[in-house]
Amino acid sequence: MTSSNKKITQELKPLFEPESIAVIGASNSPAKWGNWMVTRPIGSGYRGRIYPVNPRDKEVAGLKAYSNVLEIPEPVDLAIITIPASMVPDTMRECVSKGVKAAVLISAGFAETGPKGKALQDEVVKIAMEGGIRFMGPNGMGIWSSSVRLNTAFWFTPKTGGISFVSQSGTMGAYLLETANNKGYGFNSFLSVGNQADLSMTDYIEYLGSDEGTSVIVLYIEGLKDGKRFLQKAREVIKKKPIIVFKGGITENGSRATMSHTASIAGSDDVFEAMCHQAGIIRMYDVSHAFDVAEALSKQPLPRRNRVAVVSAGGGHCVVTTDACGALGLDVPELDDETVRALEPYLLPHAPPPKNPIDLAADPRPMTVANIVKLLAQNPLIDAIITMAPVSIRSTNPTHVREVLSAAEILSEIPRQYGKPLIATAMRGNMEGIAFELMRERGIPFYEFPEEAARAMYGLYRYAQIH
Amino acid sequence: MTSSNKKITQELKPLFEPESIAVIGASNSPAKWGNWMVTRPIGSGYRGRIYPVNPRDKEVAGLKAYSNVLEIPEPVDLAIITIPASMVPDTMRECVSKGVKAAVLISAGFAETGPKGKALQDEVVKIAMEGGIRFMGPNGMGIWSSSVRLNTAFWFTPKTGGISFVSQSGTMGAYLLETANNKGYGFNSFLSVGNQADLSMTDYIEYLGSDEGTSVIVLYIEGLKDGKRFLQKAREVIKKKPIIVFKGGITENGSRATMSHTASIAGSDDVFEAMCHQAGIIRMYDVSHAFDVAEALSKQPLPRRNRVAVVSAGGGHCVVTTDACGALGLDVPELDDETVRALEPYLLPHAPPPKNPIDLAADPRPMTVANIVKLLAQNPLIDAIITMAPVSIRSTNPTHVREVLSAAEILSEIPRQYGKPLIATAMRGNMEGIAFELMRERGIPFYEFPEEAARAMYGLYRYAQIH
Repeated sequence: MTSSNKKITQELKPLFEPESIAVIGASNSPAKWGNWMVTRPIGSGYRGRIYPVNPRDKEVAGLKAYSNVLEIPEPVDLAIITIPASMVPDTMRECVSKGVKAAVLISAGFAETGPKGKALQDEVVKIAMEGGIRFMGPNGMGIWSSSVRLNTAFWFTPKTGGISFVSQSGTMGAYLLETANNKGYGFNSFLSVGNQADLSMTDYIEYLGSDEGTSVIVLYIEGLKDGKRFLQKAREVIKKKPIIVFKGGITENGSRATMSHTASIAGSDDVFEAMCHQAGIIRMYDVSHAFDVAEALSKQPLPRRNRVAVVSAGGGHCVVTTDACGALGLDVPELDDETVRALEPYLLPHAPPPKNPIDLAADPRPMTVANIVKLLAQNPLIDAIITMAPVSIRSTNPTHVREVLSAAEILSEIPRQYGKPLIATAMRGNMEGIAFELMRERGIPFYEFPEEAARAMYGLYRYAQIH
Repeated sequence: MTSSNKKITQELKPLFEPESIAVIGASNSPAKWGNWMVTRPIGSGYRGRIYPVNPRDKEVAGLKAYSNVLEIPEPVDLAIITIPASMVPDTMRECVSKGVKAAVLISAGFAETGPKGKALQDEVVKIAMEGGIRFMGPNGMGIWSSSVRLNTAFWFTPKTGGISFVSQSGTMGAYLLETANNKGYGFNSFLSVGNQADLSMTDYIEYLGSDEGTSVIVLYIEGLKDGKRFLQKAREVIKKKPIIVFKGGITENGSRATMSHTASIAGSDDVFEAMCHQAGIIRMYDVSHAFDVAEALSKQPLPRRNRVAVVSAGGGHCVVTTDACGALGLDVPELDDETVRALEPYLLPHAPPPKNPIDLAADPRPMTVANIVKLLAQNPLIDAIITMAPVSIRSTNPTHVREVLSAAEILSEIPRQYGKPLIATAMRGNMEGIAFELMRERGIPFYEFPEEAARAMYGLYRYAQIH
């Protein structure tokens, strides 16, 4: 760890792992941010103490309230501030007096509203800086930090996992995390960074680079204020873990929109693309794709080379997965005669020769897929595997169910056993079934469409190249 | 209607709208195709008569069974055949004697297995042709025809709508329809065409081109046997309704896979691309994208030009939707000062100037989006609108709910009122809420991600250009 790393880790620890929070602007009115900032941490099982601050009410959401942060009898690590912008400078001064270590500024009405708001924001930055408080925001939606189970950003509690997501857009960020959460992906942390008046995207990636709970970082960026420093830090981080980026404002009209949204100069997309390439940042061009790739990177080993085996009971799935791999620079190489002969005994007589892709021809036996994938994982010519799960839908036959579970267990062990990534695609629209549940629990990423699976595998291969 | 149209409509009517079906190979064993071919039509509410044919059992699934198709006392329009390949020629002869008009050959073991199977297939073609029977298959998964509610292909009954889907892959076709069905899209018909020994992709599009219930045709193609005739018919059909295509086998390894899957020569992708362009076929490159576009084309009017207005309560949604439009050649033009002044009174004071995209800045009032979209629809500089729905999540306040419903009603009327397409994007991961339900019921397509909405709008614009 460099001295810069150590400094940022120390400074941001009260943001990510506060032992106590004060909610300044806490409210009993259920449709207000000041209410959610208290009820959401309670609901997510926040591990520290919560001190609501409200000048009138004695209690907020059942917790004793204080009329001022200075009245709180215990130390406060993190202040979460949701009061009108004009009142923020005085409150920040009080936080300094109290010895608060970090703050999340939810309040809007700063630089995003024009020169007057910018002056107010500069004042807040000065007070905080002189008082030794680092802060996130203003004009953001807050945080999810799984290590202390602190949620201020979502109306639900996110699933825990290795993905940390830093978003320059609050609503879009929250939306993306919600859709990814619905797919079963788990998050170490989420930050809605707002105006980045003090702490910037660069600071967050530096912190997350050294954060043990974070295995992959996803960024939604509309514009970078410190491109050069970002590039330098990103390079350092990427030695330890992957960074995946989606960039808003890549067209002329889109840039106009980023200007009025986050006052970001989107900049030339060619320059951004070159920067990603130089730093080894994995860039995605559809806003939802980053999470499919992050899920695989958070759970699977990296392939040595780009040679993928594709296994499915559906011929069409074989065709489309193979095409999707090819379009992303992944090879689905034709297998040699010896391997084909070794695989053939496991297949039904009418199945086509298993040259890769391997079409199981609607084989209903759960162990077929496990046997085939295991042999492929042992083959030195194959670096990675995309497979269907053993069929398990609507069967109530105990022997069959037992076989499905055995096959799913064998498949789940393959990445650890052979050090090769395994990714699964669904054969039914609902992705239900016991095999799916078991494999997902044990870290095998599942995708609805062949293109998603291929993209996830591409992410693994890309990071293997960079790393 | 040309004479060719009339001929094909007459010949394929017994396939799409049979008054009676015989299931040859009907079975009481619940894990067999011969069982599903009887139970599925019963389950989907097939409007005609079902005659199971089984040499041993007196009844199948509660219906009287016949030992031979010739024993059925009433006329049979359509024979669904699921017996071993070797027995098909004799059975086809019996169907000819019985006066059966069309057949669906589920049985596999024909041309896809090699020269011997090909010879058997040729024999069946000859018998059917001489006997005046047109047939689908062999080696397919059957049909969904909503006009008579005949389902043989799915374990569920598809939703009814204007999309007709013809698939060269059975498993992939069924999978895609299932996922689209789960999104709420409705289907007029589905055909798993199998080996296309008699009826081909070209015949089906010619029939569907004149079919009143079909408003848009989606094709999954691995290879075309009669490219020239297909191109000619596609051109004729596209004058009446759009055709959207996904093509499997576009890479070298993918082509190898189509050869072993459907014995299709995938052909040069450049040639296929040029053909699509020439004919006005809308081509999609991700296998799931075709249905998102088809849904919009089945329900929305076409835009006059490419000028899109984007409305959302989230700034990030505005940015990403605008970028996604731009990437597909859709313009999100900056609005003139007069329009901006007309829109401003409807927005919150802190919202950015409504220059397009229009960021409602988290406005919680349901009528804001309705008022803004209505004004935009009246504007001659705007051809189409992508909007969020009025916010309706988790509100139990009756006044608010009434307002949400009113706003949703106003929005739903806009396409009919102003002849401009309206497409909605979700702001929450589950797309729930009363506004969503109401608008979807009234024909407003909803998409989970900005890129999907932009793609659907692109489909409308593309067909408007071709049409």
